[in-house]
Order: sequence, then structure tokens, then C-alpha cells
Amino acid sequence: MAIKIDLRSDTVTKPTAGMLAAMMVAKVGDDVFGEDETVHQLETKLAKMFNMEAGLFCPSGTMTNQIAIKCFTQPMDEVICDQTAHVYRYEGGGIAYHSMASVRLLNGPRGIISPELIEPEINDENIHYPNSSLVVLENTVNKGGGACYHLSQIEPIHTLCNIKGLKLHLDGARIFNALVATGDTAKHYGQYFDGISVCLSKGLGAPVGSVLLGSKETIKKAVKIRKAFGGGMRQAGFLAAAGIYALDHHVERMAIDHDHARALSAALNQVNYVALVLPVETNIVIFEVALGFKAESIVQLLAEKGIVCTAFGPRAVRMVTHLDISSEMIDRAIETILHLHPSFHK
Amino acid sequence: MAIKIDLRSDTVTKPTAGMLAAMMVAKVGDDVFGEDETVHQLETKLAKMFNMEAGLFCPSGTMTNQIAIKCFTQPMDEVICDQTAHVYRYEGGGIAYHSMASVRLLNGPRGIISPELIEPEINDENIHYPNSSLVVLENTVNKGGGACYHLSQIEPIHTLCNIKGLKLHLDGARIFNALVATGDTAKHYGQYFDGISVCLSKGLGAPVGSVLLGSKETIKKAVKIRKAFGGGMRQAGFLAAAGIYALDHHVERMAIDHDHARALSAALNQVNYVALVLPVETNIVIFEVALGFKAESIVQLLAEKGIVCTAFGPRAVRMVTHLDISSEMIDRAIETILHLHPSFHK
Amino acid sequence: MAIKIDLRSDTVTKPTAGMLAAMMVAKVGDDVFGEDETVHQLETKLAKMFNMEAGLFCPSGTMTNQIAIKCFTQPMDEVICDQTAHVYRYEGGGIAYHSMASVRLLNGPRGIISPELIEPEINDENIHYPNSSLVVLENTVNKGGGACYHLSQIEPIHTLCNIKGLKLHLDGARIFNALVATGDTAKHYGQYFDGISVCLSKGLGAPVGSVLLGSKETIKKAVKIRKAFGGGMRQAGFLAAAGIYALDHHVERMAIDHDHARALSAALNQVNYVALVLPVETNIVIFEVALGFKAESIVQLLAEKGIVCTAFGPRAVRMVTHLDISSEMIDRAIETILHLHPSFHK
Amino acid sequence: MAIKIDLRSDTVTKPTAGMLAAMMVAKVGDDVFGEDETVHQLETKLAKMFNMEAGLFCPSGTMTNQIAIKCFTQPMDEVICDQTAHVYRYEGGGIAYHSMASVRLLNGPRGIISPELIEPEINDENIHYPNSSLVVLENTVNKGGGACYHLSQIEPIHTLCNIKGLKLHLDGARIFNALVATGDTAKHYGQYFDGISVCLSKGLGAPVGSVLLGSKETIKKAVKIRKAFGGGMRQAGFLAAAGIYALDHHVERMAIDHDHARALSAALNQVNYVALVLPVETNIVIFEVALGFKAESIVQLLAEKGIVCTAFGPRAVRMVTHLDISSEMIDRAIETILHLHPSFHK
Repeated sequence: MAIKIDLRSDTVTKPTAGMLAAMMVAKVGDDVFGEDETVHQLETKLAKMFNMEAGLFCPSGTMTNQIAIKCFTQPMDEVICDQTAHVYRYEGGGIAYHSMASVRLLNGPRGIISPELIEPEINDENIHYPNSSLVVLENTVNKGGGACYHLSQIEPIHTLCNIKGLKLHLDGARIFNALVATGDTAKHYGQYFDGISVCLSKGLGAPVGSVLLGSKETIKKAVKIRKAFGGGMRQAGFLAAAGIYALDHHVERMAIDHDHARALSAALNQVNYVALVLPVETNIVIFEVALGFKAESIVQLLAEKGIVCTAFGPRAVRMVTHLDISSEMIDRAIETILHLHPSFHK
Repeated sequence: MAIKIDLRSDTVTKPTAGMLAAMMVAKVGDDVFGEDETVHQLETKLAKMFNMEAGLFCPSGTMTNQIAIKCFTQPMDEVICDQTAHVYRYEGGGIAYHSMASVRLLNGPRGIISPELIEPEINDENIHYPNSSLVVLENTVNKGGGACYHLSQIEPIHTLCNIKGLKLHLDGARIFNALVATGDTAKHYGQYFDGISVCLSKGLGAPVGSVLLGSKETIKKAVKIRKAFGGGMRQAGFLAAAGIYALDHHVERMAIDHDHARALSAALNQVNYVALVLPVETNIVIFEVALGFKAESIVQLLAEKGIVCTAFGPRAVRMVTHLDISSEMIDRAIETILHLHPSFHK
Repeated sequence: MAIKIDLRSDTVTKPTAGMLAAMMVAKVGDDVFGEDETVHQLETKLAKMFNMEAGLFCPSGTMTNQIAIKCFTQPMDEVICDQTAHVYRYEGGGIAYHSMASVRLLNGPRGIISPELIEPEINDENIHYPNSSLVVLENTVNKGGGACYHLSQIEPIHTLCNIKGLKLHLDGARIFNALVATGDTAKHYGQYFDGISVCLSKGLGAPVGSVLLGSKETIKKAVKIRKAFGGGMRQAGFLAAAGIYALDHHVERMAIDHDHARALSAALNQVNYVALVLPVETNIVIFEVALGFKAESIVQLLAEKGIVCTAFGPRAVRMVTHLDISSEMIDRAIETILHLHPSFHK
Repeated sequence: MAIKIDLRSDTVTKPTAGMLAAMMVAKVGDDVFGEDETVHQLETKLAKMFNMEAGLFCPSGTMTNQIAIKCFTQPMDEVICDQTAHVYRYEGGGIAYHSMASVRLLNGPRGIISPELIEPEINDENIHYPNSSLVVLENTVNKGGGACYHLSQIEPIHTLCNIKGLKLHLDGARIFNALVATGDTAKHYGQYFDGISVCLSKGLGAPVGSVLLGSKETIKKAVKIRKAFGGGMRQAGFLAAAGIYALDHHVERMAIDHDHARALSAALNQVNYVALVLPVETNIVIFEVALGFKAESIVQLLAEKGIVCTAFGPRAVRMVTHLDISSEMIDRAIETILHLHPSFHK
């Protein structure tokens, strides 16, 4: 049988030979004692890239996000984010659990929020209300089908937060996809955010890890919180080396993933079992199944033909392109999509 | 100047002479030691009335609600309620703070939610998601303009919760208004809820307190949580006596408050500065100001004429009728509403 | 049968006729709206008395203590106190629950701690350690048999906290007993503490309540936390009136309670079933039973003769004198103690 | 200059060539999706070794400990452990922060606790007290100078916990040192504990990680908590492969580390700047400096001669032997200890 084409997530990528070689020659030390030079190198490289003061390597994007939220809130505060936000939906209830903070949920188009949506939801000073203290953006928006913020959309949110005394955090699980798609520059991000989580194990293809960027003061607090979370790792340089390699080799090639996603989208737009494909901006394709079909059945049929993807609720399906998906695989996936079942043709 | 007519809230009522007399002859004891017989009497009376096993007297409805939520959830669980729910909006972020639980927010018409809205929001078993464990209803819905649930609407929610393994709590801040308006009987409530908060200091007119009702096991847990909250009071019987008096004397008369509210509504429907009055079901009147007016300005103008009410956001105003508002006062309020400003007449 | 003499705690006192009369004529309002003038009067009176900026009336001493600890700590901080401290032992695990703070426990003689004990337990800056941020004293020390701090002992603790950047809170559950016993003046306390809890329902004899004192900024935070705790009460002035009355009438008379406690102690020192009586400084008498006796059996025997007291662990018994214990009752208690059982005489 | 001899901790070890080779060929997958076979292999291997049902790989021993404590407690519960316990002292205040649980601290000889110490500290049912729900042992005891529990000491603690309804968790940061020293068998541990943390990055020499062992139900809860902590890692098999290699190659050789520690101890017992060496049972040597010396100065002097160790408070010093310390290094360390300063000789 043909090899499986795994479009479930860009988290499934495995290190390339070059990345593995880089890992194995990494210089390591005890990072809990601050002595792993490869970890330092990664943290510094990313901080510089995004024009922020400091970085902190953690085992996952969930951890960098949740540490940031803890840094920027107090118990009884309120976090403002889109209702689809990963920090709210997919991090195990962490905002309430780790930070004892409430949420105020917005309903942005494809998860993209704006000052107009945010401002009315900032609480007045009133003993009955939680204190609004943080806005979280996600770029790209996973649940929004990989929709991107442009810097020009972020700037006025930053201005509003500044005026109102709120912090602004970026869940950058797929920030490099956004940068490649928009042409914005990482360097310009630092001025707008108090914290940025940069994930290494999605489109970048590193096996493990995420880096939290912020001011020196924020990162000092974050190191202490990471310790309590049990996220301090000893000889973590092996993992950091993969991250450095990924930053050097796997950023520009994301344009290919985006082309692949658009090609999948074009095919999906031709078949009768698909009602709607969200416009593809990056490497995520989300489509709604047509009336009379179930997301799970389509996922099942595709899986039988070696195309693995994910049901997103009862009526939507997600496909994600990434480093381990070649153009040949995309061609085969398109063939499969187009001929999934004779009676399915339009 | 004429006496102020305070329509801000039914929490502002002061004890009547009869209630005060009942308070002063109350038999008291140390309730932390379980020795205050008047407190016991109140707890037992309400438990029996709602057909539940046990009751617990607390200093406020916020405390009975928050203790109930703590009883029925674990950290990392999720509470399902309407986005306007008092437990979510007006209790200082308590769900996240006290229970470390997330919220899933529904958008029910006037805050009234249903199995159709609830069911799709119950999370599947998945490590990324909080565990859905509790549904909270509010009857009447404060922010929904005093809208009521009928028992026939509650029953299928109870059934769904039962099937899905969720608990069901009632924020009964104004449950007696609902009972008077719907004609439902308190006795039938016990079978549907795991916990009920009954507030004594709103329409009932007692100075302080709320009683949490539940099973013996729930109340045993609740006593311990109340202790940690600092809600255990010593000779609390003075307050409980007021509650008993209120239950004996102030329930049926709520029909008058409802009449008063309808009369206010009728007047508001005649003036040009009001765009819309939410249908009046109980003792709360919420109206939206017409285009070109601001809620705060209308509140200000009314206050200058001795009618005190509350802006509910930039475009809505709330008036609440209660024990301390006589028919004469309502007549005067209506006069004022109708002639608030010459240029305002339709 | 003779009337029961209740020496279990000074929390069991019931309002005197004078206090009840004061309650009955109290002017009340909605204190959640800040409109109860009797509550204001009590808060202001106590703040002035202790030379602090502001006060906040709460339903219990547990609540004022736990709110203060929340005000003065962050999650992951550490509170330093004696291992017998009420805030640690008897408040339902509130330090960890409400404030997510650790404890560092000292072993002071009779619960009295000193700079020498505190200083070595203040953590250095280190990511492995919680951040030491608060010291809590208890005056008098309940578990230490009513032992008192003199102001001269508090001053150097304040100095140490100041130098090290820690806050200092006083659990003043029985602060007036301490003041009466030491001759210190309330006015001098304000300069040493960031927060003071003054309990009204112990030796002072009010039915319910405690007032937290602090700076305006602290009390502003405290009001918000009290709301989330559900400690905001509506027409609380009835309770506050009792507190005002108690401050005016029941402070100086505590000297009598202390005389009574000393008299009990003298009697206990004469009987063979008592091994040791802790030196009596205020209104608490704690004695250790002699070898061959059990605390619980002694408590039982005394109860059969109408003297009610409390076992404090398997080998100690506590008696507390208070407003409702007359000299005649003390005489009878002494008779009972001396003749508890023929074979018990020395 | 001669190479530095790093006796600060057994966490500083770097992978051997063999371990690195094993890492390089590890088969990996997305462990958040449960698809990393090397991680599974490690978890299964350890669970089998300790006769427990299941295992969970985490980034650190702090995380496995804190997840276990969360699994076995509720907010407002109380954890019983020695006052020197790593879970209480060195995990950033995690018991209070993650589990909102109190601590009851024992004072065992060298941190070794017993049923006699534990039993009186289990709280009775009382609303004032936290609910005692968990006992935590540490084997070996880090702060106790590597003191070991024998299984015969653990069995009666298990029995007490069983009778009293408490869970029992083992912080096995250095459990293999204990096994090698006592001759006890891992297989016998499973029956006594509800949870065991096994650290891979200390004496075992793996770069990163710890495995939590427990029942299937416990591990199911733990997976969810790990997700919220951000401890779920994607292609974690590289790290797990090192752990497997360590279990196969680095357990028995710990006897050498113990010999080395004893040799250091013997030397330390001969010099005048050492007042006392804690009896060496495993790979930790803790000594108290003699009167007139400071721990930090001794650490400094040793460091200048290339021997790096850690001050443990103002008067104690800790040395830890491990995989990267050869016999030649120990000989050199002993020479240095014996001739640290001419005036130091006895």
C-alpha cells in the first residue's frame, strides 16, 4: 500500500537528516543552572530576530502561552481573546487553572479581532467585574483556517492596549507562516507585544519546544514560573539545536506549504461533498462538508485512501501542509480528493 | 424636595417594622458550632419548601453561588452558562478564581438557555479540552430583564445534564419572582437541581443573606468551603430571623412589584427617548434608549427628578421594583417618565 | 439543673440588652453600594483607633485574615508565621486555597515569633524557592494560651520586614485582650502593620464580624476581593452597630475576664489531674492533663457538672473567659474543678 | 589548568557516546497524539520494572511530582511530608500553586519519616482543618544527605495511609541510588505507592526527563494535567531513548558513585574545617563546616582548585558524585580536600 499522507497537523513532522546531525553535535549543559549554551543561542537568536530583550525555551507552546498569561495577569483579572483562541479552547482550561483569570470572548471574523471588538469589552473599574488586563492574539489563527494578521492590523490593537493599560500577548504557534504569507518582518513585531510565543515544532519542523520572548523583566518572572511548572529541562541543548537549524533552513520554504494548501483548496472547491472552503492564507485548509455529508465520514473515506486529516466538529475538516509533505504527495492527495467516490463528482 | 424613589435594585430594601421586631427577638447561638437555632430553622424551612435535603445560610448570593460552583467542579473543569449570567459577569471573576474552572458561554434569548444550545457545547473527552461538568441557570435572568424559566423549560435541561453527567445549579437570586410570575411551585424545583441559591436580600426584603440548598452530602462539602471563605458567622440568627419573616410575609406581595413594573413599562413605551422596552415578566424593566440619547443622560435626568435607576451599558437603563416602592411612588415615577422633558413627548 | 457555664470560646457570647437596643435603631443602607452609614462609622472608628487609613467590615475574622493575605501575596509567594498560627491551622487551608501561597512555619515559644526566628527563613532570590513576601503575627496567640506580644516585640519585626521588603499582617482576633493586658495603645499599632484584622465577635461580644484595617490602597483591593469572596453584605449596619457598641462598652471590662482566667488557673494548679497550666496572660487558660488522664475524659467530666470547655489535642484542655461569664460562674467553675472527682484531690 | 571536577549535582551529567548513538536512531512520532513509540517503550519499561500499571514521560521531576500531587489532592487538602522535602522546598511553591493544598511538615531524622511521626499529624474531620489526603516520601532524601528508606520502613507507612484513606507518593528523584544501596528490588515498590516519580536526568545520566508511574486511572488523569502544564512534547522519543539507554547501562554502576562518596567523606572527616559529615549512604555527601568557617568560603576555596560544590545554607556544603566523575577525579578531589590550605590541617 502507498505511504500515508499525514495532513492532520504540522506537529507531526520528524527531523530531517540535517537537523538530526545538528542535534547530535550540540553543546549542552545544565540549563536549570543556566549553563546550556545551545539553549542560550536559540533564545538569543529569536529575541534578536523579533527585536525583544530576552527569550525562554520551554517544552511546548502551551507552556509558553500559559506562562505569558500568568506573567501578565493576576488572579481575578480578565483576558480578552477570540472565542476560537487556542489559549482558551485547546490548552486544558489553563487560563482559569494557572492564572485564575476570567475570559471575555470575542467573535472575530475567522478569529481575527480588532480594536472595535476589543474596546467595548474592557471592563470599567467596578468591584463586580474582573479587571481587564490582557489581550491575546493568535497569528495565524488555527481555528480560523490559518487566517493572518498583518502588522497594520496589530498596530491599532497595540495602541488601544497601551491607552487602556492592558498587556498584549501573541500566540505565535504559526507566526512564521504569517510572516511568509504577509511579507511582514519579524523585527517589527517586538514593539507591539509584551510577550510572543514562537513555536518550533509546527511548520518549522523541530521535534520539541517553543520560545517565549519578552522584556528582561518578563523573562525573569517567566523563568521562575517555568520552574514551578516543571518546564526547566537539564541538557535541553539537543532540542534547541533542532530549533536553530529550523530557523536557518525551514522558514522560507513555508511558501511551498502555502502553495500546497492552495492547490488542495482548489481541488476541494471542485467536489460535491464540500460546501465551502475557507480562503487559504497559509498552510491550513478548513472546509465545510456539503449537506448530507458528515465530516467524520469524509475523514474516514480519505483515510482509507491514505490521506489522513482531522474532523473539526461535526461539519468541518482540517488539512495542514508541512515540511514532510512533498509536491508528489499533494498531487496524490488532489487525485484522491477529486475521485473520492464516483457518485461524489459534481 | 420629594422623597427619592430608588429603582436601582431590589437589594436596597430596608427591614419593615415587623421584620425588625422579628430580628430582635431571635434566639441565637454560635452558628460556626452549629448552635444557632434560628439559622437552622431558616435552612430547614427553605430546604423543605424546595424539597431538598439541606440548606446553608451564607452572607450573600455571590457566596452561595460560588460555593455551589466549587462543590460541583474540579480545577480544569468547564461551566456552561449564558454569557449574561451573574455568576460569570458580576461575581468578580469568581468561577476562575475560586474554582479554577473555565466557562463556555451561550447566547440565549434574554439569557434563557435550552438543551439545544447546551448540548453542542459539552466537550468530548479530549486532553486539550476542559471537562464540562456544570450548567448554571439564573431564574429570573437579571441581565435579561427579569425573564423567567418555566419548570417545563428546566426539565429537559435537567434530563440532558443527567444523561451527560453534568450537575445543574440554579442561581435563584430572584427565584420567588419567577415562582410568583409563572405559578410554578417551589416544591417541584428540588428534583431538577443539584444546588439552588435562594437570595433573601432582594425582592424578599431581608437585610443580608442567601441560602444554598442541596443534598446532605453537598451541604456537608459546602459548610467546609464556607469556612474557608470566611462565611461562617457566629450569632447569625438575627439575620436569619429576617429571612424567615420575609418568607412568611413578602412572597405573595411580589405580584404587586410585577404590576408596578408593567405600569412603568407601559409609560416607557409612550415616550420618544425609549426605543424598546424588554417585555416585563417580573420586577425588572430594561429599556433601550432611542437613537440620539445616552443611557447615562436619561439616568441623570430622572435622578434630578428623584427617580433613581441604573445605566446598563451605554444604551440601556434598568429599573427594579420592590418592597419599598409603593403604588404612589410608581404613579409619581410614571408622571416623571412621561414628562421628563417637554421636547421628549411623542 | 444549674445553668451551663460555657468556657469553650469567647465566640459564644450573645448580645447584651444594650447592644441589642443599639442594633435595633441602627441606620442602614446597601453596603455593597457603599451606602450603609453605620458600617462606615464602624470602619472609620476602628481605623482612627489604630491609626490606619481605612477599614473594611467583613463577616468573620477568617475572611479579614484571608483577604489580607491575598492582598499582600502573589501566587507562588511564601507566608512566614508560627506553626500554631490560626491563619495556617484553623482557616481551612485558606493560605494555599485563596492565595496559592506556601508557608514557612516557625516554632516560637507559645507561638510568639521574633526577628531571630524569622530572618533565617526568608528565602534568597532563587528560582527553586517561593518568594517570601509576608509575615503574620497573632495577638494574642490562641493556641499559645493567650500569650501576648508587647509593642516592643513587634517593632523589631516590623523593622526586619521593612528592610527585607516583606509585608506584616496582624491577626488581631483578640487584639483588645492584648491591649488591656499589656497596657499598649491601639494608636501605636498602625505604624507597624500593613494590615490588621480586628475581630468583633470574640471578647468584644458582638454577634458577627471583623474589620480589616490598612492603607486606602490596601482596602481598595480588599473591597474587590471581599466581593469575589461573597463577603459583601447589604444592610449590614445592624451588625456594625453591635460592633460600635462593643468598642464603646466592652473593651475595658476585659480586665475582668483576665482576672477570671487567672482564678481558674490557680484552681487548676491545685488538682492532681493537671500536669501544667500555661501562664495566663489574658482570657485563655490552656492546661495539660497529668499522666494517666485524657483531655477528652476531663472535658467530659467537667461537662457533666455543667462546665463546658474544649479538648486541644489528646492531652490539653482550653478554657476561655468572656462577657457572658460572671464572677459567680467562675466561683462555681472553681468549685467544680477542685472537686471534680474525690480520687482526684491532691 | 586542570579540568573542573563538578560535584554540584548529578543533574550536570552529559550523555555518553553510547547514549548519544541511541538517541540518534530513536524512532519518534507525535507523542501528544500518543504516537511516539520510543516514549511508549520507556514508559512501559519503567512501569513493568516497578510493577505499576502505567507510566508518563514528562520534562522534569518537578513536573512528575507536581502532577502526582495534583492527581492525589483537591484544593483545601493537606499534604504531609518532611520539612526538607524537595516537593515543598525546591519546587517553587508548587503544592500551593498547582494544587491549592496545604502542607503539614514533619521533622524526620535526615528527612526520613515514619508512621509514628505521620499519624498524629493527620487531621480529624473538622471544618476548620484542611483534609489530610497525601503523604509524600523522598528516596533518597536529597537534603538529608542521600539517606535511604528501606522497603521495610515504607511498608508500615503504606499500611497507615491505607487505614486512614491517604494516598502515598514517592519522589524517586534518586530511587535507583536507593535501590543499589539497600539491595531492595524495584518490583516491590509498586504495591506500596499510588504514584512514583522516577528521574532520568540525575544519577542515570539522561539529558532530560522523568517518568510518573501509577495506576491506569491515575495516568489518565496525569496526561490531562500534563497537557495543561504544557508538558506534552511532540517528538520526545529522542529524550526517551536516552532514558532507556540509561536504565540498561547506568544503574548498577551507581555503586561506584557510592564508593566515591564514601571516599570523599573519609577525607572530609580528616580535615579541621569540617565539623561533621552526614553518614554517607548513597552518592550525596553533606558536611557541616567547623566553627570559625563559612560554607561559602570553603566552596570558594575548593572552586579555586577546580572542585565545584554547593553551599547548603550558611554552614553546610553538599558534594554529589555521578557518572561523569571518575576515580581519578575523586583522587584529585581528595588531595585537594586534604590540602585545601596549610593552616587547615588537623
